[in-house]
Amino acid sequence: MVENSRPLDALNNARNKRVIIELKNGKQYLGKLTAFDIHINIVLEEAEEKENGELKRKLGVVFIRGDTIIMISPA
Amino acid sequence: MVENSRPLDALNNARNKRVIIELKNGKQYLGKLTAFDIHINIVLEEAEEKENGELKRKLGVVFIRGDTIIMISPA
Amino acid sequence: MVENSRPLDALNNARNKRVIIELKNGKQYLGKLTAFDIHINIVLEEAEEKENGELKRKLGVVFIRGDTIIMISPA
Amino acid sequence: MVENSRPLDALNNARNKRVIIELKNGKQYLGKLTAFDIHINIVLEEAEEKENGELKRKLGVVFIRGDTIIMISPA
Amino acid sequence: MVENSRPLDALNNARNKRVIIELKNGKQYLGKLTAFDIHINIVLEEAEEKENGELKRKLGVVFIRGDTIIMISPA
Amino acid sequence: MVENSRPLDALNNARNKRVIIELKNGKQYLGKLTAFDIHINIVLEEAEEKENGELKRKLGVVFIRGDTIIMISPA
Amino acid sequence: MVENSRPLDALNNARNKRVIIELKNGKQYLGKLTAFDIHINIVLEEAEEKENGELKRKLGVVFIRGDTIIMISPA
Repeated sequence: MVENSRPLDALNNARNKRVIIELKNGKQYLGKLTAFDIHINIVLEEAEEKENGELKRKLGVVFIRGDTIIMISPA
Repeated sequence: MVENSRPLDALNNARNKRVIIELKNGKQYLGKLTAFDIHINIVLEEAEEKENGELKRKLGVVFIRGDTIIMISPA
Repeated sequence: MVENSRPLDALNNARNKRVIIELKNGKQYLGKLTAFDIHINIVLEEAEEKENGELKRKLGVVFIRGDTIIMISPA
Repeated sequence: MVENSRPLDALNNARNKRVIIELKNGKQYLGKLTAFDIHINIVLEEAEEKENGELKRKLGVVFIRGDTIIMISPA
Repeated sequence: MVENSRPLDALNNARNKRVIIELKNGKQYLGKLTAFDIHINIVLEEAEEKENGELKRKLGVVFIRGDTIIMISPA
Repeated sequence: MVENSRPLDALNNARNKRVIIELKNGKQYLGKLTAFDIHINIVLEEAEEKENGELKRKLGVVFIRGDTIIMISPA
Repeated sequence: MVENSRPLDALNNARNKRVIIELKNGKQYLGKLTAFDIHINIVLEEAEEKENGELKRKLGVVFIRGDTIIMISPA
Protein backbone atom coordinates (compact mmCIF):
# COMPACT_ATOMS: atom_id res chain seq x y z
CA MET A 1 0.00 0.00 0.00
CA VAL A 2 1.61 3.26 -1.12
CA GLU A 3 2.34 6.29 1.02
CA ASN A 4 -0.60 8.73 1.43
CA SER A 5 -3.12 6.15 0.28
CA ARG A 6 -6.75 6.74 1.28
CA PRO A 7 -9.01 4.30 3.16
CA LEU A 8 -11.30 3.78 0.15
CA ASP A 9 -8.27 2.54 -1.81
CA ALA A 10 -8.17 -0.41 0.58
CA LEU A 11 -11.81 -1.18 -0.22
CA ASN A 12 -11.06 -0.90 -3.91
CA ASN A 13 -8.23 -3.42 -3.50
CA ALA A 14 -10.73 -5.80 -1.91
CA ARG A 15 -13.22 -5.58 -4.78
CA ASN A 16 -14.27 -9.00 -6.10
CA LYS A 17 -12.51 -10.65 -3.18
CA ARG A 18 -14.06 -12.26 -0.11
CA VAL A 19 -14.30 -10.02 2.96
CA ILE A 20 -15.69 -10.26 6.46
CA ILE A 21 -17.76 -7.33 7.74
CA GLU A 22 -18.41 -6.76 11.45
CA LEU A 23 -21.69 -4.97 12.22
CA LYS A 24 -22.57 -2.84 15.26
CA ASN A 25 -25.27 -5.39 16.21
CA GLY A 26 -22.65 -8.13 16.73
CA LYS A 27 -23.33 -10.03 13.49
CA GLN A 28 -20.82 -10.75 10.71
CA TYR A 29 -21.37 -10.89 6.96
CA LEU A 30 -18.98 -12.75 4.68
CA GLY A 31 -19.04 -12.52 0.92
CA LYS A 32 -17.49 -11.17 -2.25
CA LEU A 33 -17.27 -7.35 -2.17
CA THR A 34 -18.76 -6.08 -5.43
CA ALA A 35 -19.65 -2.45 -4.69
CA PHE A 36 -19.09 0.32 -2.12
CA ASP A 37 -19.52 4.10 -1.89
CA ILE A 38 -18.27 7.00 0.25
CA HIS A 39 -20.89 6.24 2.93
CA ILE A 40 -19.35 2.73 3.13
CA ASN A 41 -22.61 1.24 1.89
CA ILE A 42 -21.51 -2.20 0.71
CA VAL A 43 -22.79 -4.89 -1.64
CA LEU A 44 -21.68 -8.48 -1.09
CA GLU A 45 -22.41 -11.46 -3.35
CA GLU A 46 -22.50 -15.11 -2.19
CA ALA A 47 -23.06 -13.67 1.27
CA GLU A 48 -23.36 -15.55 4.56
CA GLU A 49 -24.58 -14.16 7.87
CA LYS A 50 -22.75 -15.35 10.97
CA GLU A 51 -23.24 -14.75 14.68
CA ASN A 52 -20.50 -15.67 17.15
CA GLY A 53 -18.66 -17.37 14.29
CA GLU A 54 -21.63 -19.67 13.53
CA LEU A 55 -23.36 -19.67 10.13
CA LYS A 56 -26.95 -18.34 10.47
CA ARG A 57 -28.06 -18.20 6.83
CA LYS A 58 -26.93 -17.86 3.21
CA LEU A 59 -28.18 -14.72 1.53
CA GLY A 60 -26.87 -14.35 -2.03
CA VAL A 61 -26.64 -10.60 -2.72
CA VAL A 62 -26.83 -8.25 0.28
CA PHE A 63 -26.82 -4.46 0.47
CA ILE A 64 -25.42 -3.34 3.84
CA ARG A 65 -26.00 0.24 5.04
CA GLY A 66 -22.67 1.86 5.85
CA ASP A 67 -23.59 3.30 9.23
CA THR A 68 -24.10 -0.21 10.66
CA ILE A 69 -20.52 -1.28 9.86
CA ILE A 70 -17.62 -1.42 12.32
CA MET A 71 -14.88 -2.94 10.16
CA ILE A 72 -14.14 -4.73 6.91
CA SER A 73 -11.26 -7.17 6.39
CA PRO A 74 -10.21 -9.75 3.76
CA ALA A 75 -11.77 -13.12 4.69
CA MET B 1 -22.74 -7.21 -11.52
CA VAL B 2 -20.20 -5.20 -13.49
CA GLU B 3 -16.84 -3.95 -12.28
CA ASN B 4 -16.96 -0.60 -10.41
CA SER B 5 -20.69 -0.87 -9.86
CA ARG B 6 -22.17 1.24 -7.05
CA PRO B 7 -24.28 -0.05 -4.14
CA LEU B 8 -27.42 1.73 -5.36
CA ASP B 9 -27.16 -0.27 -8.61
CA ALA B 10 -27.86 -3.37 -6.54
CA LEU B 11 -31.02 -1.76 -5.16
CA ASN B 12 -32.04 -0.78 -8.67
CA ASN B 13 -31.62 -4.41 -9.79
CA ALA B 14 -33.97 -5.41 -6.95
CA ARG B 15 -36.71 -2.99 -8.01
CA ASN B 16 -40.12 -4.67 -8.38
CA LYS B 17 -38.72 -7.83 -6.82
CA ARG B 18 -39.31 -9.21 -3.34
CA VAL B 19 -36.69 -8.31 -0.75
CA ILE B 20 -36.12 -8.84 2.96
CA ILE B 21 -35.04 -5.84 5.02
CA GLU B 22 -33.40 -6.21 8.44
CA LEU B 23 -34.01 -3.29 10.80
CA LYS B 24 -31.88 -2.12 13.72
CA ASN B 25 -34.75 -2.95 16.12
CA GLY B 26 -34.57 -6.65 15.23
CA LYS B 27 -37.66 -6.76 12.99
CA GLN B 28 -37.76 -7.79 9.33
CA TYR B 29 -39.91 -6.40 6.51
CA LEU B 30 -40.59 -8.45 3.39
CA GLY B 31 -42.18 -7.04 0.27
CA LYS B 32 -41.79 -5.83 -3.30
CA LEU B 33 -39.23 -3.00 -3.52
CA THR B 34 -40.87 -0.17 -5.48
CA ALA B 35 -38.81 2.92 -4.51
CA PHE B 36 -35.57 3.97 -2.81
CA ASP B 37 -33.39 7.07 -2.55
CA ILE B 38 -29.80 7.98 -1.59
CA HIS B 39 -30.73 7.96 2.12
CA ILE B 40 -31.84 4.32 1.59
CA ASN B 41 -35.40 5.33 2.42
CA ILE B 42 -37.40 2.42 0.98
CA VAL B 43 -40.95 1.75 -0.15
CA LEU B 44 -42.24 -1.82 -0.15
CA GLU B 45 -45.59 -3.04 -1.49
CA GLU B 46 -47.42 -6.20 -0.31
CA ALA B 47 -45.29 -5.86 2.83
CA GLU B 48 -45.17 -8.21 5.80
CA GLU B 49 -43.57 -7.51 9.19
CA LYS B 50 -41.76 -10.41 10.81
CA GLU B 51 -40.00 -10.84 14.15
CA ASN B 52 -37.74 -13.84 14.75
CA GLY B 53 -38.92 -15.24 11.42
CA GLU B 54 -42.57 -15.19 12.52
CA LEU B 55 -45.22 -13.18 10.64
CA LYS B 56 -46.52 -10.30 12.85
CA ARG B 57 -48.79 -8.45 10.40
CA LYS B 58 -49.51 -7.66 6.74
CA LEU B 59 -49.10 -3.99 5.90
CA GLY B 60 -49.64 -3.28 2.18
CA VAL B 61 -47.46 -0.27 1.32
CA VAL B 62 -44.76 0.72 3.82
CA PHE B 63 -42.31 3.61 3.81
CA ILE B 64 -39.17 2.66 5.79
CA ARG B 65 -36.77 5.39 6.96
CA GLY B 66 -33.27 4.60 5.72
CA ASP B 67 -31.42 5.14 8.99
CA THR B 68 -33.29 2.23 10.61
CA ILE B 69 -32.04 -0.30 8.03
CA ILE B 70 -29.17 -2.75 8.51
CA MET B 71 -29.36 -4.73 5.26
CA ILE B 72 -31.48 -5.51 2.21
CA SER B 73 -31.41 -8.81 0.31
CA PRO B 74 -33.54 -10.56 -2.34
CA ALA B 75 -36.23 -12.63 -0.56
CA MET C 1 -46.93 3.05 -8.26
CA VAL C 2 -44.96 3.85 -11.39
CA GLU C 3 -41.49 2.61 -12.29
CA ASN C 4 -38.60 4.67 -10.85
CA SER C 5 -40.86 6.35 -8.31
CA ARG C 6 -39.19 7.91 -5.27
CA PRO C 7 -40.00 7.15 -1.63
CA LEU C 8 -41.44 10.61 -0.99
CA ASP C 9 -43.99 9.95 -3.75
CA ALA C 10 -45.43 7.25 -1.51
CA LEU C 11 -45.80 9.77 1.32
CA ASN C 12 -47.43 12.21 -1.10
CA ASN C 13 -49.94 9.51 -2.09
CA ALA C 14 -50.79 9.12 1.60
CA ARG C 15 -51.47 12.82 2.13
CA ASN C 16 -54.84 13.48 3.78
CA LYS C 17 -55.24 9.77 4.44
CA ARG C 18 -54.92 7.90 7.73
CA VAL C 19 -51.52 6.35 8.40
CA ILE C 20 -49.82 4.46 11.19
CA ILE C 21 -46.30 5.54 12.18
CA GLU C 22 -43.95 3.29 14.16
CA LEU C 23 -41.44 5.14 16.33
CA LYS C 24 -38.03 3.97 17.53
CA ASN C 25 -39.29 4.12 21.15
CA GLY C 26 -41.89 1.42 20.48
CA LYS C 27 -44.93 3.72 20.31
CA GLN C 28 -47.31 4.14 17.36
CA TYR C 29 -49.08 7.27 16.14
CA LEU C 30 -52.20 7.05 14.00
CA GLY C 31 -53.74 10.00 12.23
CA LYS C 32 -54.34 11.86 8.99
CA LEU C 33 -51.04 12.75 7.26
CA THR C 34 -51.19 16.46 6.41
CA ALA C 35 -47.53 17.45 5.94
CA PHE C 36 -44.04 15.95 5.53
CA ASP C 37 -40.60 17.10 4.40
CA ILE C 38 -37.32 15.56 3.19
CA HIS C 39 -36.24 14.88 6.79
CA ILE C 40 -39.46 12.81 7.12
CA ASN C 41 -40.71 15.28 9.75
CA ILE C 42 -44.44 14.54 9.77
CA VAL C 43 -47.64 16.30 10.82
CA LEU C 44 -50.69 14.22 11.69
CA GLU C 45 -54.20 15.52 12.48
CA GLU C 46 -56.80 13.68 14.60
CA ALA C 47 -53.82 11.79 16.01
CA GLU C 48 -53.86 8.96 18.53
CA GLU C 49 -50.89 7.56 20.43
CA LYS C 50 -50.81 3.79 20.91
CA GLU C 51 -48.47 1.45 22.74
CA ASN C 52 -48.64 -2.31 22.13
CA GLY C 53 -51.77 -1.70 20.06
CA GLU C 54 -53.56 -0.02 23.01
CA LEU C 55 -54.83 3.58 22.81
CA LYS C 56 -52.84 5.82 25.22
CA ARG C 57 -54.23 9.26 24.38
CA LYS C 58 -55.85 11.43 21.70
CA LEU C 59 -53.66 14.33 20.61
CA GLY C 60 -55.25 16.37 17.79
CA VAL C 61 -52.38 17.79 15.72
CA VAL C 62 -48.90 16.29 16.28
CA PHE C 63 -45.54 17.22 14.78
CA ILE C 64 -43.25 14.15 14.75
CA ARG C 65 -39.50 14.60 14.27
CA GLY C 66 -38.32 12.48 11.33
CA ASP C 67 -35.34 10.87 13.02
CA THR C 68 -37.61 9.10 15.53
CA ILE C 69 -39.58 7.28 12.80
CA ILE C 70 -39.07 3.67 11.72
CA MET C 71 -41.89 3.26 9.22
CA ILE C 72 -45.11 4.77 7.87
CA SER C 73 -48.00 2.76 6.39
CA PRO C 74 -51.65 3.40 5.44
CA ALA C 75 -53.86 2.68 8.49
CA MET D 1 -54.27 23.19 7.24
CA VAL D 2 -53.93 23.70 3.49
CA GLU D 3 -52.91 21.09 0.92
CA ASN D 4 -49.14 20.69 0.45
CA SER D 5 -48.38 22.42 3.73
CA ARG D 6 -44.96 21.77 5.31
CA PRO D 7 -44.32 20.45 8.83
CA LEU D 8 -42.77 23.73 10.00
CA ASP D 9 -46.06 25.49 9.14
CA ALA D 10 -47.66 23.44 11.92
CA LEU D 11 -45.02 24.71 14.38
CA ASN D 12 -45.62 28.26 13.16
CA ASN D 13 -49.35 27.83 13.83
CA ALA D 14 -48.48 26.80 17.40
CA ARG D 15 -46.34 29.89 18.07
CA ASN D 16 -47.34 31.69 21.27
CA LYS D 17 -49.62 28.80 22.19
CA ARG D 18 -49.08 26.12 24.83
CA VAL D 19 -47.58 22.88 23.57
CA ILE D 20 -46.42 19.59 25.05
CA ILE D 21 -43.07 18.21 23.88
CA GLU D 22 -42.08 14.56 24.32
CA LEU D 23 -38.35 13.95 24.66
CA LYS D 24 -36.38 10.80 23.83
CA ASN D 25 -35.43 10.45 27.52
CA GLY D 26 -39.07 9.97 28.51
CA LYS D 27 -39.65 13.46 29.96
CA GLN D 28 -42.22 16.00 28.81
CA TYR D 29 -41.95 19.79 28.64
CA LEU D 30 -45.06 21.99 28.60
CA GLY D 31 -44.98 25.70 27.84
CA LYS D 32 -45.66 28.49 25.38
CA LEU D 33 -43.79 27.95 22.10
CA THR D 34 -41.96 31.20 21.30
CA ALA D 35 -39.23 30.14 18.85
CA PHE D 36 -38.12 27.23 16.66
CA ASP D 37 -35.74 26.61 13.76
CA ILE D 38 -35.18 24.03 11.01
CA HIS D 39 -33.28 21.76 13.43
CA ILE D 40 -36.47 21.79 15.58
CA ASN D 41 -34.53 23.56 18.34
CA ILE D 42 -37.37 24.98 20.46
CA VAL D 43 -37.80 27.75 23.03
CA LEU D 44 -40.65 27.50 25.52
CA GLU D 45 -41.70 30.14 28.06
CA GLU D 46 -43.54 29.43 31.34
CA ALA D 47 -42.19 25.91 30.97
CA GLU D 48 -42.85 22.90 33.20
CA GLU D 49 -40.98 19.62 33.20
CA LYS D 50 -43.06 16.48 33.70
CA GLU D 51 -42.21 12.81 34.03
CA ASN D 52 -44.94 10.17 33.77
CA GLY D 53 -47.50 12.99 33.77
CA GLU D 54 -46.25 14.33 37.14
CA LEU D 55 -44.89 17.89 37.52
CA LYS D 56 -41.14 17.78 38.35
CA ARG D 57 -40.24 21.50 38.24
CA LYS D 58 -41.13 24.91 36.82
CA LEU D 59 -38.43 26.33 34.57
CA GLY D 60 -39.44 29.69 33.02
CA VAL D 61 -37.67 29.90 29.65
CA VAL D 62 -36.14 26.69 28.25
CA PHE D 63 -34.10 26.07 25.12
CA ILE D 64 -34.58 22.45 23.96
CA ARG D 65 -32.13 20.92 21.46
CA GLY D 66 -34.03 19.58 18.47
CA ASP D 67 -32.39 16.18 18.27
CA THR D 68 -33.81 15.22 21.71
CA ILE D 69 -37.43 15.74 20.59
CA ILE D 70 -39.86 13.00 19.57
CA MET D 71 -43.05 15.00 19.07
CA ILE D 72 -44.74 18.35 19.66
CA SER D 73 -48.51 18.81 20.11
CA PRO D 74 -50.85 21.58 21.31
CA ALA D 75 -51.33 21.24 25.09
CA MET E 1 -39.34 37.76 23.42
CA VAL E 2 -40.50 39.20 20.09
CA GLU E 3 -42.65 37.47 17.49
CA ASN E 4 -40.70 35.30 15.02
CA SER E 5 -37.67 35.17 17.28
CA ARG E 6 -35.19 32.33 16.74
CA PRO E 7 -34.02 29.83 19.36
CA LEU E 8 -30.44 31.18 19.34
CA ASP E 9 -31.83 34.60 20.36
CA ALA E 10 -32.86 32.98 23.65
CA LEU E 11 -29.29 31.77 24.18
CA ASN E 12 -28.01 35.24 23.35
CA ASN E 13 -30.34 36.71 26.00
CA ALA E 14 -28.81 34.29 28.51
CA ARG E 15 -25.21 35.34 27.76
CA ASN E 16 -23.27 36.28 30.89
CA LYS E 17 -26.11 34.95 33.05
CA ARG E 18 -26.23 31.73 35.06
CA VAL E 19 -27.88 28.78 33.33
CA ILE E 20 -28.54 25.11 34.05
CA ILE E 21 -27.79 22.61 31.28
CA GLU E 22 -29.24 19.09 31.26
CA LEU E 23 -27.09 16.50 29.51
CA LYS E 24 -28.17 13.25 27.85
CA ASN E 25 -26.11 11.29 30.43
CA GLY E 26 -28.29 12.57 33.29
CA LYS E 27 -25.81 15.14 34.66
CA GLN E 28 -26.39 18.88 35.02
CA TYR E 29 -23.93 21.74 34.56
CA LEU E 30 -24.55 25.13 36.14
CA GLY E 31 -22.54 28.23 35.33
CA LYS E 32 -22.33 31.56 33.54
CA LEU E 33 -22.98 31.18 29.79
CA THR E 34 -20.15 32.98 27.98
CA ALA E 35 -20.18 31.47 24.48
CA PHE E 36 -22.30 29.29 22.17
CA ASP E 37 -22.47 28.45 18.46
CA ILE E 38 -24.97 27.00 15.97
CA HIS E 39 -24.09 23.43 17.03
CA ILE E 40 -25.12 24.50 20.59
CA ASN E 41 -21.54 23.95 21.73
CA ILE E 42 -21.49 25.92 25.01
CA VAL E 43 -18.88 27.51 27.26
CA LEU E 44 -19.71 28.05 30.93
CA GLU E 45 -17.58 29.88 33.51
CA GLU E 46 -17.69 29.27 37.27
CA ALA E 47 -19.21 25.91 36.36
CA GLU E 48 -20.48 23.22 38.72
CA GLU E 49 -21.35 19.63 37.82
CA LYS E 50 -24.39 18.14 39.53
CA GLU E 51 -25.98 14.72 39.50
CA ASN E 52 -29.49 14.20 40.91
CA GLY E 53 -29.35 17.79 42.20
CA GLU E 54 -26.21 17.09 44.24
CA LEU E 55 -22.95 19.01 43.66
CA LYS E 56 -20.25 16.65 42.28
CA ARG E 57 -17.42 19.09 41.53
CA LYS E 58 -16.50 22.69 40.70
CA LEU E 59 -14.91 23.06 37.28
CA GLY E 60 -14.19 26.71 36.39
CA VAL E 61 -14.44 26.99 32.60
CA VAL E 62 -16.12 24.12 30.74
CA PHE E 63 -16.62 23.54 27.02
CA ILE E 64 -19.71 21.33 26.47
CA ARG E 65 -20.23 19.61 23.11
CA GLY E 66 -23.64 20.54 21.74
CA ASP E 67 -24.81 17.06 20.81
CA THR E 68 -24.76 15.98 24.49
CA ILE E 69 -27.24 18.69 25.55
CA ILE E 70 -30.96 18.19 26.15
CA MET E 71 -31.96 21.63 27.41
CA ILE E 72 -30.68 24.97 28.70
CA SER E 73 -32.58 27.21 31.13
CA PRO E 74 -31.79 30.26 33.30
CA ALA E 75 -30.58 29.05 36.73
CA MET F 1 -13.41 36.07 28.06
CA VAL F 2 -14.78 38.85 25.85
CA GLU F 3 -18.39 39.45 24.91
CA ASN F 4 -19.63 37.48 21.89
CA SER F 5 -16.76 35.05 22.10
CA ARG F 6 -17.21 31.67 20.40
CA PRO F 7 -16.83 28.26 22.03
CA LEU F 8 -13.73 27.38 19.98
CA ASP F 9 -12.02 30.48 21.45
CA ALA F 10 -12.19 28.74 24.83
CA LEU F 11 -10.43 25.70 23.34
CA ASN F 12 -7.83 27.97 21.78
CA ASN F 13 -7.18 29.53 25.21
CA ALA F 14 -6.58 26.04 26.56
CA ARG F 15 -3.99 25.14 23.90
CA ASN F 16 -0.74 23.83 25.38
CA LYS F 17 -2.38 23.64 28.81
CA ARG F 18 -3.56 20.56 30.69
CA VAL F 19 -7.24 19.70 30.29
CA ILE F 20 -9.60 16.97 31.41
CA ILE F 21 -11.95 15.48 28.80
CA GLU F 22 -15.07 13.53 29.75
CA LEU F 23 -16.13 10.89 27.22
CA LYS F 24 -19.60 9.46 26.59
CA ASN F 25 -18.34 6.01 27.68
CA GLY F 26 -17.62 7.28 31.20
CA LYS F 27 -13.83 7.52 30.85
CA GLN F 28 -11.69 10.64 31.30
CA TYR F 29 -8.55 11.68 29.43
CA LEU F 30 -6.11 14.17 30.94
CA GLY F 31 -3.27 15.76 29.02
CA LYS F 32 -1.88 18.82 27.26
CA LEU F 33 -4.24 20.06 24.53
CA THR F 34 -2.14 20.50 21.38
CA ALA F 35 -4.70 20.46 18.56
CA PHE F 36 -8.45 20.64 17.89
CA ASP F 37 -10.78 21.25 14.94
CA ILE F 38 -14.41 22.25 14.32
CA HIS F 39 -15.59 18.66 14.88
CA ILE F 40 -13.96 18.91 18.36
CA ASN F 41 -11.50 16.19 17.35
CA ILE F 42 -8.75 16.66 19.96
CA VAL F 43 -5.07 15.78 20.32
CA LEU F 44 -3.60 15.48 23.80
CA GLU F 45 0.07 14.94 24.67
CA GLU F 46 1.35 13.33 27.91
CA ALA F 47 -2.13 11.83 28.14
CA GLU F 48 -3.54 9.66 30.92
CA GLU F 49 -6.73 7.61 30.81
CA LYS F 50 -8.81 7.55 33.99
CA GLU F 51 -11.98 5.75 35.00
CA ASN F 52 -13.89 6.80 38.12
CA GLY F 53 -10.97 9.12 38.96
CA GLU F 54 -8.49 6.22 38.94
CA LEU F 55 -5.47 6.15 36.59
CA LYS F 56 -5.86 3.29 34.05
CA ARG F 57 -2.88 3.90 31.76
CA LYS F 58 -0.43 6.48 30.38
CA LEU F 59 -0.76 7.00 26.65
CA GLY F 60 1.58 9.73 25.34
CA VAL F 61 -0.14 11.28 22.32
CA VAL F 62 -3.85 10.53 21.82
CA PHE F 63 -6.23 11.53 19.06
CA ILE F 64 -9.81 11.66 20.41
CA ARG F 65 -12.75 11.67 17.98
CA GLY F 66 -14.97 14.67 18.69
CA ASP F 67 -18.30 12.87 18.72
CA THR F 68 -17.27 10.83 21.77
CA ILE F 69 -16.66 13.95 23.91
CA ILE F 70 -19.06 15.37 26.50
CA MET F 71 -16.98 18.20 27.95
CA ILE F 72 -13.50 19.71 28.16
CA SER F 73 -12.20 21.70 31.14
CA PRO F 74 -8.81 22.96 32.38
CA ALA F 75 -7.25 20.28 34.61
CA MET G 1 4.13 19.22 17.67
CA VAL G 2 4.03 22.82 16.41
CA GLU G 3 1.68 25.55 17.58
CA ASN G 4 -1.73 25.63 15.85
CA SER G 5 -1.35 22.11 14.52
CA ARG G 6 -4.54 20.28 13.51
CA PRO G 7 -5.70 16.90 14.80
CA LEU G 8 -5.21 15.19 11.42
CA ASP G 9 -1.53 16.22 11.57
CA ALA G 10 -1.19 13.89 14.53
CA LEU G 11 -2.64 11.03 12.47
CA ASN G 12 -0.28 11.89 9.63
CA ASN G 13 2.65 11.68 12.05
CA ALA G 14 1.47 8.20 12.99
CA ARG G 15 1.36 6.95 9.40
CA ASN G 16 3.26 3.69 8.90
CA LYS G 17 3.67 3.35 12.65
CA ARG G 18 1.87 0.99 15.02
CA VAL G 19 -1.18 2.44 16.76
CA ILE G 20 -3.88 1.23 19.12
CA ILE G 21 -7.48 2.16 18.32
CA GLU G 22 -10.25 2.03 20.93
CA LEU G 23 -13.72 1.34 19.53
CA LYS G 24 -17.11 2.30 20.98
CA ASN G 25 -17.96 -1.42 21.34
CA GLY G 26 -15.12 -1.92 23.84
CA LYS G 27 -12.71 -3.68 21.43
CA GLN G 28 -9.21 -2.56 20.48
CA TYR G 29 -7.42 -2.84 17.15
CA LEU G 30 -3.62 -2.69 16.93
CA GLY G 31 -1.72 -2.37 13.69
CA LYS G 32 0.28 -0.20 11.32
CA LEU G 33 -1.69 2.91 10.29
CA THR G 34 -1.52 3.11 6.49
CA ALA G 35 -4.46 5.35 5.57
CA PHE G 36 -7.02 7.74 7.07
CA ASP G 37 -9.47 10.41 5.88
CA ILE G 38 -11.42 13.35 7.33
CA HIS G 39 -14.16 11.00 8.60
CA ILE G 40 -11.40 9.22 10.58
CA ASN G 41 -11.98 6.09 8.52
CA ILE G 42 -8.77 4.14 9.14
CA VAL G 43 -6.82 1.35 7.44
CA LEU G 44 -4.48 -0.77 9.54
CA GLU G 45 -2.08 -3.45 8.26
CA GLU G 46 -0.80 -6.41 10.33
CA ALA G 47 -3.85 -5.78 12.52
CA GLU G 48 -4.82 -7.58 15.70
CA GLU G 49 -8.19 -7.42 17.49
CA LYS G 50 -8.08 -7.35 21.27
CA GLU G 51 -10.76 -7.36 23.95
CA ASN G 52 -9.88 -6.48 27.55
CA GLY G 53 -6.21 -6.51 26.53
CA GLU G 54 -6.44 -10.12 25.27
CA LEU G 55 -5.65 -11.06 21.65
CA LYS G 56 -8.85 -12.28 19.89
CA ARG G 57 -7.63 -12.69 16.30
CA LYS G 58 -5.09 -11.58 13.68
CA LEU G 59 -6.68 -9.81 10.74
CA GLY G 60 -4.08 -8.55 8.24
CA VAL G 61 -5.58 -5.46 6.59
CA VAL G 62 -8.62 -3.87 8.26
CA PHE G 63 -10.78 -0.94 7.23
CA ILE G 64 -12.37 0.67 10.33
CA ARG G 65 -15.32 3.04 9.93
CA GLY G 66 -14.52 6.35 11.61
CA ASP G 67 -17.76 6.74 13.56
CA THR G 68 -16.98 3.62 15.62
CA ILE G 69 -13.67 5.06 16.91
CA ILE G 70 -13.13 6.65 20.33
CA MET G 71 -9.37 7.27 20.26
CA ILE G 72 -6.14 6.49 18.44
CA SER G 73 -2.70 6.41 20.11
CA PRO G 74 0.80 5.17 19.20
CA ALA G 75 1.13 1.52 20.34
